[in-house]
Amino acid sequence: MDLKQQALELHQQLRGKIEVVARKPIETREDLSLMYTPGVAEPCLAIQKDYDASFRLTRRGNLVAVVTDGSAVLGLGDIGPAAAMPVMEGKCALFKEFAGVDAFPICVDTQDVDQLVETIYLISKSFGGINLEDIAAPRCFEVERRLKERCDIPVFHDDQHGTAIVVASAMLNAARVTGKIASEMKIVINGAGAAGIAIGKLLLSMGFGNMVMCDINGIICAGDQGLNPGQEEIARITNTNREHGSLADALKSADAFVGVSRPNLVTAEMVSTMKDGIVFAMANPTPEIMPDEAKRGGAAVVGTGRSDFPNQINNVLVFPGVFKGALTVRAREITEEMKVAAAKALAALVPDNRLNPAYILPSPLDKSVSATVAQAVAATARAQGVARL
Amino acid sequence: MDLKQQALELHQQLRGKIEVVARKPIETREDLSLMYTPGVAEPCLAIQKDYDASFRLTRRGNLVAVVTDGSAVLGLGDIGPAAAMPVMEGKCALFKEFAGVDAFPICVDTQDVDQLVETIYLISKSFGGINLEDIAAPRCFEVERRLKERCDIPVFHDDQHGTAIVVASAMLNAARVTGKIASEMKIVINGAGAAGIAIGKLLLSMGFGNMVMCDINGIICAGDQGLNPGQEEIARITNTNREHGSLADALKSADAFVGVSRPNLVTAEMVSTMKDGIVFAMANPTPEIMPDEAKRGGAAVVGTGRSDFPNQINNVLVFPGVFKGALTVRAREITEEMKVAAAKALAALVPDNRLNPAYILPSPLDKSVSATVAQAVAATARAQGVARL
Repeated sequence: MDLKQQALELHQQLRGKIEVVARKPIETREDLSLMYTPGVAEPCLAIQKDYDASFRLTRRGNLVAVVTDGSAVLGLGDIGPAAAMPVMEGKCALFKEFAGVDAFPICVDTQDVDQLVETIYLISKSFGGINLEDIAAPRCFEVERRLKERCDIPVFHDDQHGTAIVVASAMLNAARVTGKIASEMKIVINGAGAAGIAIGKLLLSMGFGNMVMCDINGIICAGDQGLNPGQEEIARITNTNREHGSLADALKSADAFVGVSRPNLVTAEMVSTMKDGIVFAMANPTPEIMPDEAKRGGAAVVGTGRSDFPNQINNVLVFPGVFKGALTVRAREITEEMKVAAAKALAALVPDNRLNPAYILPSPLDKSVSATVAQAVAATARAQGVARL
Repeated sequence: MDLKQQALELHQQLRGKIEVVARKPIETREDLSLMYTPGVAEPCLAIQKDYDASFRLTRRGNLVAVVTDGSAVLGLGDIGPAAAMPVMEGKCALFKEFAGVDAFPICVDTQDVDQLVETIYLISKSFGGINLEDIAAPRCFEVERRLKERCDIPVFHDDQHGTAIVVASAMLNAARVTGKIASEMKIVINGAGAAGIAIGKLLLSMGFGNMVMCDINGIICAGDQGLNPGQEEIARITNTNREHGSLADALKSADAFVGVSRPNLVTAEMVSTMKDGIVFAMANPTPEIMPDEAKRGGAAVVGTGRSDFPNQINNVLVFPGVFKGALTVRAREITEEMKVAAAKALAALVPDNRLNPAYILPSPLDKSVSATVAQAVAATARAQGVARL
C-alpha cells in the first residue's frame, strides 16, 4: 500500500488526529462541585479581578490556536477551511507531542483581511498564542501585522518565521561545516513568497551577506514592477549589487541556494557554477533539485524538506519550542531577537564532533530539541524585557 | 478548607481543566509522514472533493464548540470572555467525561450581535456543533436564530434548551409520581429570561397546560409594556386566562412552580396555596425556596439545582447526550421534536418501581444517561429527516 492510501486509511480510522480530554476525571459529586458549579465561580471571580490569572487558572497559559483561512495549504493551494483541517490537526498533534503545548485548530471561512483579523482577534482571549498557518501571501503579512498590533499574546506566522528560523539554523551549520564566513556569503533565495521573504530578512538580521531574491521571472531588484509590499520591502535590503537576470545567473559564484519554490528548477550544471554550493532545496514533496543531482553538480551540503534524505529542514524543529518558550515567560510577542536565539540554539545542538555535510541539523523526531529552543527563546524574551513572567 | 478555596486551589494546580492530545503518538519517520506531511495531503484532497468527508477524516464529526461572550456567566453576570473560561472549560470536560464528545471553549470578546454571529459563523466549519453558553438575554435569542439560519451544523443554546429539556423531564416524572395530568396542570415559571422562556415553550409543546410566566414585576400578560421580543412571543402563548398580579397570586392553585430566578422569593405560605405543589427551585447556589421550607408548605415534590438535595435538576443530564445524538447522525439542527424526545427518554430512565417524590431524575453523575438521550435524539432526527447519516 502506498503512502497516500495509507495516510487516507489512517485518517479514516482515527477520525481526527487530536482530541480534547479532561485533565481530571469527573466521578463524584465533589468533582462536579469543584470542576463545575458551584466551585468554578471562584476562578472566574479571580480572573475578573486579575486578568493575568487567566493564564494560570485556565489552559490559556499553555494553549496555542493554529489558525488558517485554507488559502495556501501545503502545495495544494487554496482548498478552503474544511479541507485544510487535516494539516492543522497534524500541526496541533506535533505541538503536543514535541513540546507538551496544547494547540487547537481553527479554520476561518473567509479570505477577507478585515474579517480574518477581526475573527482571530475576537477569539484571542481564549488562547496564549496564535500560530498563523497556510495563509497566502501577501495577505498573510497584513493579517499578521495587524494581529500583532491588536492582540496581547504572541502572533507568529509559522510559514514565514518557523521556516526562516530552521533555514537560518541549517545555514549557520552549513557555513560552519564548509568554513564559509557568513558576512561574505552570497545567498540566493528562490521563491519570493511568505517563506522566502522571511528567510531573507532573518538571514540578513543574523549577519549573512549578500542576499539575492528570485521569483518566477528571475532576480528581483528594488524598483521592479509588480512587486507586492512584502517583496518591495525585501527588495530594498537585498541584491545590493543590483544584479539582473535569471536564477541561473544569480547562482553563478553563489555560496548558497535556498529554494522555497517549485520542483526541478535547478540543474547540476547550475550548481556547478556555485562556490562549494550549499543547496537547500525545500520544495515539497519534490525538491528544486534532487540531492544526488546537486551532489553531481558539486554541492558541498544538501538539505531538503524530505525525511528520506539527510538534512531534513523541517519547521517541527522550531515551532513547538518557540511557542513553548514564549508561553513559559508569557512573552508579549516573538521578536526578531527571539527568532535569532532559536536559530542559534538549534544549530548549537549539533556538536563539532558530529557536524558533517550530511548532518547539519538534529532529527525532526528528536523531542528533546524543543526544550533547548524554548529555553533560548524564553531567556531572550526576559533579557529583552518582553517577558511578563 | 471550604469549597471556594478548594476549587481555587484545584484550578491553580490543574492550570486548565482540559487539554488537547494527539490520538496517535508521533515517534517514527513514518508517523510523521502519515500524520503530517506529505501524507496529510490525501485527506485534504478528499475533503476538497467531498465536503462531507470533513466529518469523517477530522475530529469535526465529534467536536462541539462551547461559545460564550461572557455576558451572563453563572450567577456572576457580565464578567467578560477571559473570566468566563473556567466555566467553559468545565463544560467541555463534562462533554468528554459524560458522552465522549470532544468540546472546545471559545470566549468571544464582543457583545455586539453582528460581530458575535459573524465570528461564530466564520469558525463553524471547524466544528460539528455549536453549544452557545452564558450569553445574556435577549441577545442570545437573536444570536442563536441567526446562527441556526447560517450554519450547516446544529446550534444549541444550552441555557435555554438544555435547561428546558431537563425541567421538562423532571416535570414529566413529577406529574407521574403525583398523578397529575399534564394538560390540566397550571405551571408558574418565575424568571422570564432565556431559560424561563425556553422552559415555557418546551412544556407547552409537550402538552402541559396553563403556563403562567412571572418576572420581577409579577405575572406577565400579553401586551404588557417593556417586554423584549422573546418575552412578547411567550406572553402570546401563555397565561391564557390573562391573570394579573404577583408571583404569590400566580401560585394560588398552581400545580407546579419552576424557578429560574433569584434566592428566597418563595415562602412556605405561598407553597401552601398550591395544589400538591411541585416545586423546582433552581436559582443557584441558593434556591428560590429551600427544600425543607417547601416541604413545610406542603410541596409534594421538590427539586433544586443543587447536588446536596434530592432531585438535582442539572443540564449535565442533557447536553452531552443531545449533542452526542445530533453528531452521530449529523443532524442539520436540533429540533423541537428532538428536544421532546430527549426529555421523554431521560424521564423514562426512572422506572416505576424506583420513582418516588425524592427520586424523579437519574443522578447527574450517571454516565450511562447520555447514551439513552443520544439514542432518542438520533432516532428522532432520522425519523424527521433532519439526519444526514
